[in-house]
Amino acid sequence: MSGPREECGIVGVTSHRRAAEWVYLGLYALQHRGQESAGIVAANAGNALARRGMGLVAEVFDEASLERLEGTAAIGHNRYSTTGSPTLANAQPILVNYRDGFLAVAHNGNLVNARTLRTRLEDAGSIFQSTMDTEVLVHLIAASRQPSRDLAVLEALDQLAGAFSFLILTPDALYAARDPYGFRPLSVGRRGETIVVASETCALDLVGAQFEREVEPGEVIKVTPGGNVATLRHEPADVECMCVFEQIYFARPDSVVFGMSAADARRGMGRELAREHPANGDCVFSVPDSSNAAAAGFAEQSGLPLEHGLIRNHYIGRTFIQPAQDVRDFGVKIKYNPVTSVIKGQRVVIVDDSIVRGTTSGALVRLVREAGAEEVHLRIASPPLRHPCYYGIDIPKRSELVAAQMSSDEIAARVGADSLAYLSFDGLYRAVGARDRHCDACFSGNYRVSVEPGIDDKAAFEPTIATGIPSPLGQ
Amino acid sequence: MSGPREECGIVGVTSHRRAAEWVYLGLYALQHRGQESAGIVAANAGNALARRGMGLVAEVFDEASLERLEGTAAIGHNRYSTTGSPTLANAQPILVNYRDGFLAVAHNGNLVNARTLRTRLEDAGSIFQSTMDTEVLVHLIAASRQPSRDLAVLEALDQLAGAFSFLILTPDALYAARDPYGFRPLSVGRRGETIVVASETCALDLVGAQFEREVEPGEVIKVTPGGNVATLRHEPADVECMCVFEQIYFARPDSVVFGMSAADARRGMGRELAREHPANGDCVFSVPDSSNAAAAGFAEQSGLPLEHGLIRNHYIGRTFIQPAQDVRDFGVKIKYNPVTSVIKGQRVVIVDDSIVRGTTSGALVRLVREAGAEEVHLRIASPPLRHPCYYGIDIPKRSELVAAQMSSDEIAARVGADSLAYLSFDGLYRAVGARDRHCDACFSGNYRVSVEPGIDDKAAFEPTIATGIPSPLGQ
Amino acid sequence: MSGPREECGIVGVTSHRRAAEWVYLGLYALQHRGQESAGIVAANAGNALARRGMGLVAEVFDEASLERLEGTAAIGHNRYSTTGSPTLANAQPILVNYRDGFLAVAHNGNLVNARTLRTRLEDAGSIFQSTMDTEVLVHLIAASRQPSRDLAVLEALDQLAGAFSFLILTPDALYAARDPYGFRPLSVGRRGETIVVASETCALDLVGAQFEREVEPGEVIKVTPGGNVATLRHEPADVECMCVFEQIYFARPDSVVFGMSAADARRGMGRELAREHPANGDCVFSVPDSSNAAAAGFAEQSGLPLEHGLIRNHYIGRTFIQPAQDVRDFGVKIKYNPVTSVIKGQRVVIVDDSIVRGTTSGALVRLVREAGAEEVHLRIASPPLRHPCYYGIDIPKRSELVAAQMSSDEIAARVGADSLAYLSFDGLYRAVGARDRHCDACFSGNYRVSVEPGIDDKAAFEPTIATGIPSPLGQ
Amino acid sequence: MSGPREECGIVGVTSHRRAAEWVYLGLYALQHRGQESAGIVAANAGNALARRGMGLVAEVFDEASLERLEGTAAIGHNRYSTTGSPTLANAQPILVNYRDGFLAVAHNGNLVNARTLRTRLEDAGSIFQSTMDTEVLVHLIAASRQPSRDLAVLEALDQLAGAFSFLILTPDALYAARDPYGFRPLSVGRRGETIVVASETCALDLVGAQFEREVEPGEVIKVTPGGNVATLRHEPADVECMCVFEQIYFARPDSVVFGMSAADARRGMGRELAREHPANGDCVFSVPDSSNAAAAGFAEQSGLPLEHGLIRNHYIGRTFIQPAQDVRDFGVKIKYNPVTSVIKGQRVVIVDDSIVRGTTSGALVRLVREAGAEEVHLRIASPPLRHPCYYGIDIPKRSELVAAQMSSDEIAARVGADSLAYLSFDGLYRAVGARDRHCDACFSGNYRVSVEPGIDDKAAFEPTIATGIPSPLGQ
Repeated sequence: MSGPREECGIVGVTSHRRAAEWVYLGLYALQHRGQESAGIVAANAGNALARRGMGLVAEVFDEASLERLEGTAAIGHNRYSTTGSPTLANAQPILVNYRDGFLAVAHNGNLVNARTLRTRLEDAGSIFQSTMDTEVLVHLIAASRQPSRDLAVLEALDQLAGAFSFLILTPDALYAARDPYGFRPLSVGRRGETIVVASETCALDLVGAQFEREVEPGEVIKVTPGGNVATLRHEPADVECMCVFEQIYFARPDSVVFGMSAADARRGMGRELAREHPANGDCVFSVPDSSNAAAAGFAEQSGLPLEHGLIRNHYIGRTFIQPAQDVRDFGVKIKYNPVTSVIKGQRVVIVDDSIVRGTTSGALVRLVREAGAEEVHLRIASPPLRHPCYYGIDIPKRSELVAAQMSSDEIAARVGADSLAYLSFDGLYRAVGARDRHCDACFSGNYRVSVEPGIDDKAAFEPTIATGIPSPLGQ
Repeated sequence: MSGPREECGIVGVTSHRRAAEWVYLGLYALQHRGQESAGIVAANAGNALARRGMGLVAEVFDEASLERLEGTAAIGHNRYSTTGSPTLANAQPILVNYRDGFLAVAHNGNLVNARTLRTRLEDAGSIFQSTMDTEVLVHLIAASRQPSRDLAVLEALDQLAGAFSFLILTPDALYAARDPYGFRPLSVGRRGETIVVASETCALDLVGAQFEREVEPGEVIKVTPGGNVATLRHEPADVECMCVFEQIYFARPDSVVFGMSAADARRGMGRELAREHPANGDCVFSVPDSSNAAAAGFAEQSGLPLEHGLIRNHYIGRTFIQPAQDVRDFGVKIKYNPVTSVIKGQRVVIVDDSIVRGTTSGALVRLVREAGAEEVHLRIASPPLRHPCYYGIDIPKRSELVAAQMSSDEIAARVGADSLAYLSFDGLYRAVGARDRHCDACFSGNYRVSVEPGIDDKAAFEPTIATGIPSPLGQ
Repeated sequence: MSGPREECGIVGVTSHRRAAEWVYLGLYALQHRGQESAGIVAANAGNALARRGMGLVAEVFDEASLERLEGTAAIGHNRYSTTGSPTLANAQPILVNYRDGFLAVAHNGNLVNARTLRTRLEDAGSIFQSTMDTEVLVHLIAASRQPSRDLAVLEALDQLAGAFSFLILTPDALYAARDPYGFRPLSVGRRGETIVVASETCALDLVGAQFEREVEPGEVIKVTPGGNVATLRHEPADVECMCVFEQIYFARPDSVVFGMSAADARRGMGRELAREHPANGDCVFSVPDSSNAAAAGFAEQSGLPLEHGLIRNHYIGRTFIQPAQDVRDFGVKIKYNPVTSVIKGQRVVIVDDSIVRGTTSGALVRLVREAGAEEVHLRIASPPLRHPCYYGIDIPKRSELVAAQMSSDEIAARVGADSLAYLSFDGLYRAVGARDRHCDACFSGNYRVSVEPGIDDKAAFEPTIATGIPSPLGQ
Repeated sequence: MSGPREECGIVGVTSHRRAAEWVYLGLYALQHRGQESAGIVAANAGNALARRGMGLVAEVFDEASLERLEGTAAIGHNRYSTTGSPTLANAQPILVNYRDGFLAVAHNGNLVNARTLRTRLEDAGSIFQSTMDTEVLVHLIAASRQPSRDLAVLEALDQLAGAFSFLILTPDALYAARDPYGFRPLSVGRRGETIVVASETCALDLVGAQFEREVEPGEVIKVTPGGNVATLRHEPADVECMCVFEQIYFARPDSVVFGMSAADARRGMGRELAREHPANGDCVFSVPDSSNAAAAGFAEQSGLPLEHGLIRNHYIGRTFIQPAQDVRDFGVKIKYNPVTSVIKGQRVVIVDDSIVRGTTSGALVRLVREAGAEEVHLRIASPPLRHPCYYGIDIPKRSELVAAQMSSDEIAARVGADSLAYLSFDGLYRAVGARDRHCDACFSGNYRVSVEPGIDDKAAFEPTIATGIPSPLGQ
């Protein structure tokens, strides 16, 4: 799948001599969760400093900028926007100064009552600086009348609805919170006294931190110097809504999310897919790298040999220029090279994780046919994607989703495949566990947490004006 | 004088097809009032866009950036910081979005109760983005419960104390306000339906706008489309405190400030100076260009020939590098070239507008002696500068002011002049009018508007942390 | 293998409305051959314009810069330096103006008599602008007394010794030349009247040009408008020296080089390797992506299941910052993620294309063991790498090549593998064809073209001074 | 005068611990001679490093870049192009590496046989990198067969015709040469063992070097470590052609050029002008700063009071944006402020140094009339400017020179002056000395050194192509 782009990745580190450095590494490991912007706030003896920029982690930070981010605690954020426009103005973490010192916040998810809260705050005189729903939390904490910061944080979180995993850094502590339904993952690791909280466990692995546990749905933890992790509150909802798309596509295969290895989950999906929809092919290969595990599972179950039929190009710059003319399916050609010696004269089975608009699939099929494939069978390791997501994943509206418009056979015809089949819900949940603990609204349309009216309108919070008191950091 | 650096310049334009362009020109004409940063906010059909940058107007804006600032109303600001650190974070105009749309503010002056107001606002939950006292006004307006914007603006201005000339741009109108004592100048001009409000009349001249009147002390005017200028309120204090330093040094000589041509005022000071302190010289010359008019007045009154004894270098970049060694009085040499054929063998009279630390005067005297002057007589066209300013001018603290530490004769000895004399208060006010309408606290120590405790501490609002939600514009 | 970095890639296009655009695409397809700098020279009606920059093709060029490169003929170059320092000064193509108009040159290879020729030219008054051996050709052509450009080009090429594939662009024609031994590949493709000459066929594929033939060893072709391709001369040496490392590692798997698909060649090497050195494992996987084909061949021959045991990270920026401490094997961890579900509890066979210093192999083995592998068997799909290359490939000196210092068993112990085995020369040539047509000096030490003394000294042409008349293009 | 823009300034320094720093200061003092680009080459123990950039000296160099320019000898150059396009490619000094090490050259003047020499060199195989006539000298030296560098330098200089002052830096010595006619100034100063050679003495003054002597027309000196200055050759032409425009406008007033203070010369011109063409005015003022001295001379002779009637704006950025509309005479208004209190109701005499196209004069007269002048009398302190210059000064072609098209009275009418008068040749030479020692071709059309055909065609050396092997320094 190359359609739905990723949501956000967040990392927090405490009690580390150079906390920003580990946050940087964690963000790097979470780069797949957001490539639009990256930012780090580091706290040093009551003060805090932010650096945010457009682009990849490795582009936003260099040695000099990392070194300026001194301090023993830090939080970071990779963003792909789900609300708010794609500008630096909406890069995170947010850092503000208020009555009680500084407050820095990083968020993964999507609030479904942000507009209501914002209107209420503005009516009381709050001035918003961005179009991010995340800023609501900052104002709620600043405006709280609670006698302590702990209580102010809890009071503010209480007012939020939707999918969220938050990291909140203050002069005294790092707070980490997950919404009561547990839509988004958030894990806690440790290395000595250093605590690392991150969206996925792959961020813990890179810095050599040991996984300890997940932040639970509805839990707020408070991390203080010396590696102390305390639960401030734990009030889960009566149902769980773990995002199944994390298992299917988002999470890195080497991460453990919601208690399960994403690679195992995908391999299982591939096996179930082979069981449900075998294909009469000579070999099977993945669309690298997101469907590697599913393809291996398919090969294992089907007995077909696994091949490397497509090679993914490592040098695509984001600024790559489309030629003015002449080159068909250029966007796919520039990303994938077919390996003729694998494909030529073969009946190939291509396993992909999902289909969004169908354009990439069509181009891939053409590419593979041009490389000499006799037959092309597409197998999709998830159910048809038919609905948008209001909980933090950027899935296009229904009219752009090919599976919302067509049957599988019609899609097969459209993309030019000899056959095409999707994994069933049953198959999916045989691979990843109980359906009632997961949210699969993007496949089923079953939205279990209700949203405020008008949330479909993506421009809800778009700037009617470009605002801004400039940041002390320039960028 | 090269010591006290300038305050700020502000310009507002309404009902002009390309308002930002005229604001740009106005800022250019006011460049002498602040070279640290420049900014423009333009309003277009209910939306607003800001651009701010460090440096001169001509450096911050290019054609592309000016073109993006579309709209028929705009305000601009040149800054030399009097409070707040010299970073982009403190560049003006401030632009925010709040309940009632956008709000842009540009300020010239210094509030003497800003800290008190800020603390009160933060306690109620306001989050400040900068260390500028100007931001206080923005929050006061946003937090106002008044039923209309006009009333909210008046209520907010009511709470301010100190020296201020404000421009406030909203979707509907441009407001311009001067504090009840009238410390800082603010003039209104017109060309057709286009209204221009600016710190000095030279900004009106450059764009060909006709001077109409000053905004009066304690007056708030509201400018609306079609060239309508209405007085919302006019409540002056019982005394006037027009800054006499504007006449002596700040204002451009071709400006009319407080109803008088600055060039005429200075020429008068030069004449009075010659009357009070004649000098036995062969010729007289200025330290170009700030004392040109005073030197001409001195020459006229004394009968001594006026010469061009020093030439000012036009190519000094702000980033000019000091040589590691070897070159004495480099800072002055790089700025002024003595003209040997004027100076050699002559008894010269140098007229300067003021002396701050005395180091420049000393270097100038040495430079002129090295060029062959027989005698050097310094004449200063203002009284001894002995006190700091809390009303918007950046004069160093007493311990750095040479006239607060020494008599005129001691200063003469220190700078190496054969004689040195200052203009008296009587002479000064013979040249510029009634003393009781002016503030001369920096000369006399007579502060007529009281200030909040601790205001001397320049770091009062310095960031304890670097804060910031980044601006949508980056910079 | 991640050690020996790549050489250069060259592309030329004629008779295309926007030749630079196709050259850009060709360079993109050849990005694996050099990532240090990229450049294009476009010729338009007797004039030429160059753009060169440090970094990837997609970083050096944007739409605006490509559009400025107007013209119907163009050549381009990706560089990883084999001689000369890694600065923009040594980016190619070289473009100069001389008596007969402009002359642009792009080169892949390494001249072994460059110093001798340069000294001779300088003694006659030539002023060199770079430290590249390529510049020698430019001066030889400019200094030639031959009556035509064709003859001047031939005379100049005659004087060169070593490995080279050259593209030479003049106002009238594009020349392409390959050295008499045919060390480096160079292919000719066509689409309509448009001729594309490129290092590898994958560049032809991306733009949809049909492969026509290779430029032969010792051949010089001249391409003129309208798609005319003429052989100016064809004088091969009596032996061929096709670089076998192109087949093993350099060429993209989907390229046909020296008449053979690189993917097929590698798959064959993998099969031979499995035949020669079977391993008692549960599964086999590659070090993606360079050994994908060899691993698939190994799996096919051995019957072991092929897996995706390592995932290659797509987001590594070149500027990635090493953490100051704490993270072991960081360089490899940042590039490859082990897939625990594939590896845990398994006896794994890792197929790599080659081993240079052994450090990456050691880190990979540790990574895989930490992911739970029971046993790790390394299989290398080429013979031990023991000698430097003087023909255009950047292989370290012997003292850094682990296989020049140790036996296979010693290397296995050093990298921590349970077993390690290399492909034999016999096996290699069973896969790629006749040994006597190939150069394998880096494996065998058999240098068939002699080099000038001192060529080992990599600093031979290093600038004793930084020189330069700046280019009209700045960069 | 604001029309003919300046030529070039050159500085060389030897035997100074940080030679580049003094060259930087010297260039700064010579900034008026060229603002298009600046460059320095520093030599350190047989190596050399260059930095060149577009813009002012203070923009091109910062502390870091100056520090990299290590070494005890250096040369520098400010350029305003007289031939060659205004790009970085043509910035000087030129630095190349050739058989005998490095060679750096800085040039002030214009060669009148450059094209002939260049063609001859290219025919012999030389590859030119720029379009500057200066590069010819570099190739002549590199191609020389003379047994020593001294002889090679002399042989190369022998072949040049036209106006030139050259600085040539080699690993062993600094050479300074002036053409046999002595068109351009070049002075030698000393401070201890440090030798400074510069276009004007103001560069010596700034670094505290003592003026020793001029390089004589036709002289080549060689400066070696320890402050040794030897004459290699002294072969003057039989006439002198010192550029009288240096005295009128180019040289800084505090410089001594051709043995005379420029300020004295101009004051003399002003006195002669007042004698020849008295004016019935109330006061006299200059167009600051170029005619300050002439205006003072006029005032002295005429007895009219000297005033500061125009103030020159110090903040004009080169990138200043012209408003799209609305502002008449903007270019002059932005540069000069009229001082109303000086001008209003007065009959003013404006002294300017020269008139080129007449547009600035017209705008100035309007500006002064709008400020209330009763009468405006223009007095020009040089003869009518009627001919182009082929010796290094950028004067427009005849058709653009207003005095080549009109009589004085017609010009007066065109610019709107009540009267206008020029200084006579007699008056000019009473002020500056013998006419037969000077070149006044731009006034008289008397070209005493003949030029090669076609030199009028400014595009003679314009790049038919954009060439260039990029410089190791990028810029």
